[in-house]
Amino acid sequence: MTSGTLPQISASQVESPDSLVARFGPERPLVLDSGVELSPLQIAYQTYGELNAARSNAVLVCHALTGDQHAANVHPVTGKPGWWSTMVGPGKPIDTDRYFVICSNVVGGCLGTTGPASINPETGKPWALTFPLVTIRDMVRAQAMLVDFLGIDELFCVAGGSMGGMQVLEWAASFPERVYSAMPIATAAIHSAQNIAFSEVGRQAIMADPEWRGGRYLEAGTRPAKGLAVARMGAHITYLSEEALHRKFGRRLQDRSAPTFTFDADFQVESYLRHQGEAFVERFDANSYLYVTRAMDYFDIAGSHDGILANAFRGTRTRFCVISFSSDWLFPTGNSRSVVHALNAAGASVSFVEIISDKGHDAFLLDEPELIATTSGFLAAAARKRGI
Amino acid sequence: MTSGTLPQISASQVESPDSLVARFGPERPLVLDSGVELSPLQIAYQTYGELNAARSNAVLVCHALTGDQHAANVHPVTGKPGWWSTMVGPGKPIDTDRYFVICSNVVGGCLGTTGPASINPETGKPWALTFPLVTIRDMVRAQAMLVDFLGIDELFCVAGGSMGGMQVLEWAASFPERVYSAMPIATAAIHSAQNIAFSEVGRQAIMADPEWRGGRYLEAGTRPAKGLAVARMGAHITYLSEEALHRKFGRRLQDRSAPTFTFDADFQVESYLRHQGEAFVERFDANSYLYVTRAMDYFDIAGSHDGILANAFRGTRTRFCVISFSSDWLFPTGNSRSVVHALNAAGASVSFVEIISDKGHDAFLLDEPELIATTSGFLAAAARKRGI
Repeated sequence: MTSGTLPQISASQVESPDSLVARFGPERPLVLDSGVELSPLQIAYQTYGELNAARSNAVLVCHALTGDQHAANVHPVTGKPGWWSTMVGPGKPIDTDRYFVICSNVVGGCLGTTGPASINPETGKPWALTFPLVTIRDMVRAQAMLVDFLGIDELFCVAGGSMGGMQVLEWAASFPERVYSAMPIATAAIHSAQNIAFSEVGRQAIMADPEWRGGRYLEAGTRPAKGLAVARMGAHITYLSEEALHRKFGRRLQDRSAPTFTFDADFQVESYLRHQGEAFVERFDANSYLYVTRAMDYFDIAGSHDGILANAFRGTRTRFCVISFSSDWLFPTGNSRSVVHALNAAGASVSFVEIISDKGHDAFLLDEPELIATTSGFLAAAARKRGI
Repeated sequence: MTSGTLPQISASQVESPDSLVARFGPERPLVLDSGVELSPLQIAYQTYGELNAARSNAVLVCHALTGDQHAANVHPVTGKPGWWSTMVGPGKPIDTDRYFVICSNVVGGCLGTTGPASINPETGKPWALTFPLVTIRDMVRAQAMLVDFLGIDELFCVAGGSMGGMQVLEWAASFPERVYSAMPIATAAIHSAQNIAFSEVGRQAIMADPEWRGGRYLEAGTRPAKGLAVARMGAHITYLSEEALHRKFGRRLQDRSAPTFTFDADFQVESYLRHQGEAFVERFDANSYLYVTRAMDYFDIAGSHDGILANAFRGTRTRFCVISFSSDWLFPTGNSRSVVHALNAAGASVSFVEIISDKGHDAFLLDEPELIATTSGFLAAAARKRGI
C-alpha cells in the first residue's frame, strides 16, 4: 500500500530533497473536511533518533505556516539549520538520544508532501487552484496516516508552535487516545478576525501579481515572486514584537550616514524586510501559501464541538503543557489562556507557562532559556511517568 | 504673488473639486528639507466659519496619511461626510460658529496640492518619482505659506490625528510663536521601526504592481490599482484594534451559512478589507501614497534637536492637549507619553488624556464622547484665555 523510500521527484515544486516519502495509493485516500477524497497522497518526512522496541518514544513535531519537515537537520534548500534545531537534537528538550522524532511536511505544503504544486495524475498538470482546500484537521489526518504507516499506535508527545500548535490541539481533540502528552506553543484554538485579515492581505498580494496567472504559474514556467515577497514582508512584521524591531533596528540607517531622500531602503528595517521577502520566494510555493493560510483561517476547534472548546477535550488523559510568550501579539497569551480554561473545564492535566520575552511570536523558534527549561522539564516528567 | 481662486485643474490627478487653491510662483518657492526648491506650488484648501476682525480665531486642522482638505464638508469624490465632521462644525468641539477653520491638502498629496501627480512645468509631464521627497516639516512649511497668504499671524489652534498630529507637533516646534494651542491626537514625535516596516510593505505592494511602471503610470494612462489596494488593506488592519475587528466581524461568514472551501471572501472581515482596498484606489494616487508614507518614516523631531525631544519645545508658550487611545497599537499611548514628558521637561502647559476605547487608532475619526468632551473643554478654556 505504501512505501518509505528515498525521495522521488514528481514535479519541480514538490521535490523533497533528503527526505523520506510515504506514498498512499487510491485504496487509501485522505478524506478531507470538504468531503473531497485526495488521492494519491505522498507525505515527505524526516525522522531523528531511534524508535524503541515498545514503540512508545515517538514524538511528532508539527511545523508552522512556512516551516517544513526539516526540523533538526541542515535545510537542503537554504543550507541553514533546521527550524527547531534549538529544541530537537541530542541533549535538547526533544532529545533525539531518547525519543524517536518525526516531522512531516503538511498536506497542501510544498516540500514533498502533496499540495497545489503537485501533479494531478488525472490531468498530468500541477493541481494549482484545482487542489482541494485542506484544513488543520486534514493535516492531522494525513499525519495520522503516516504514524500508522510507521507502525506507531500512540505518540509520546505531539509538539509545535503557531500553526504547529494548532495541529497539536487538533491531534489531542481528534485522537486523544493516541497522544500521551501535548505541547501547543504560541498558538490558539481559533484563528482571530485580525489574523484572518492578515492572511487575506497576504493572499491578495499574491493574487494581485499578474505572474500568479490565476494560480497556473507553474504551467507558464513563471512565479508570482513579487506578490509572494510582499505577503512575506507583511507577515514577518507580525512575527516580531514592536520592542524586538526597535531593539534590532530602531531607526538606524543602512550603510549611510543620512537619509537619501529617495525610496531606497534607507532604514535597516526596510532592508531586512526586503531580504526576508526575497529569501522566502526561493523556498516556498505561492499557491501553498494560499492553501496553508486558508487552513489556519478555517481553524476553530470549538466550532466543531457545539461552540464549547472544553467539549473537544472531555475525558482526555493527555498531559498538556501550554506555552505562550508575553510579547506575542499574533497569538497573544489570551489565546493560550482560553485553551487552558477549556482544558481545566474538561478536567485535563495542564501546565501553563507564559514566558516573559520581548521577542514576539517568533520566540518559539529561538533559543529562549525558559522555553528550553519548561519543555525539558515537562517532557522528562512525562517520560518518567510513561516509563521511557 | 498668489491668488485665492476657485479650483483650476492642472492635471487629471490633481483636481481639487470644490476647494480653494492658493498658488505660489517662482519668486516664492518652498524650500524643502532635502534642499530642493519646489516651485510652482499650489495648495488646495477648505475653510469653514469666519475669520474675526482680530484675526485671532483661526484653527488649522491637519489631515492624516490618506485624508485631505475635506474635513467637514461632503467629500466631492466619495460623497461621504468629511473625515472630521464629528469634530468640526457648528456646535462641534472645533466650533465653526466661533472659529475660522482651515484645512489644506498636504504637499505631496493628490487632491489639489502639488504632488507627484502634478505636472512638472519643465517637462509638461507628471512629476512621478522625479517629484522631490517631502517631510512633515515641509508639509508644515507649506501650510505656513498658506496661513501667511490668508493674512494670519497666529493660529488659535493647530489640531490633527495620526500624521495630522505629527504636523501639529512640528508646527509647535517650528513656529512656536504662531501656535496659541495645539492638539496632537493619536500620534508620535518619531515614527517607530514597526511603523516604518508597515509603510515599507505598502510601498513594496505598490511598486510590485507592473502597472506602477516605475512610477510613470499616469503617462501610460494606467494605475497600479491592485498594488495600492493591497497596501491599503494591510494598513487598514493597523488602524483597528483586535477587539474592534472581533466585535465588528469576528469569524462571521459573508452571505453564506458554511465555508465554501474556496478562496472567496468567506469571512466578513475579508469582504470588508477587499472593499476598503477597492474604495481607496478610487480616491487616492499611488505615488502620493509612497511620498506621504515616506514623510512619516523620516519624522523624528528629537533627531533634529540634538536627540532631545524637550529641546524642540523649550520656552514654548503654546498650550498643549495631548490625547491617545488605549487600544491604539499603531501609535500607542507610550508615544504620547514621551511627548508629554518632553513638554513637561520643557516647562510647557500640557493636558494629557488617554481615552479608554477599544476602537484602535481610528478612534480619533469616530464619535468618541470622551474625545468630544476633552477637546471641547480644552478649546473653550483656551478661547476664554485668548479672549475669543
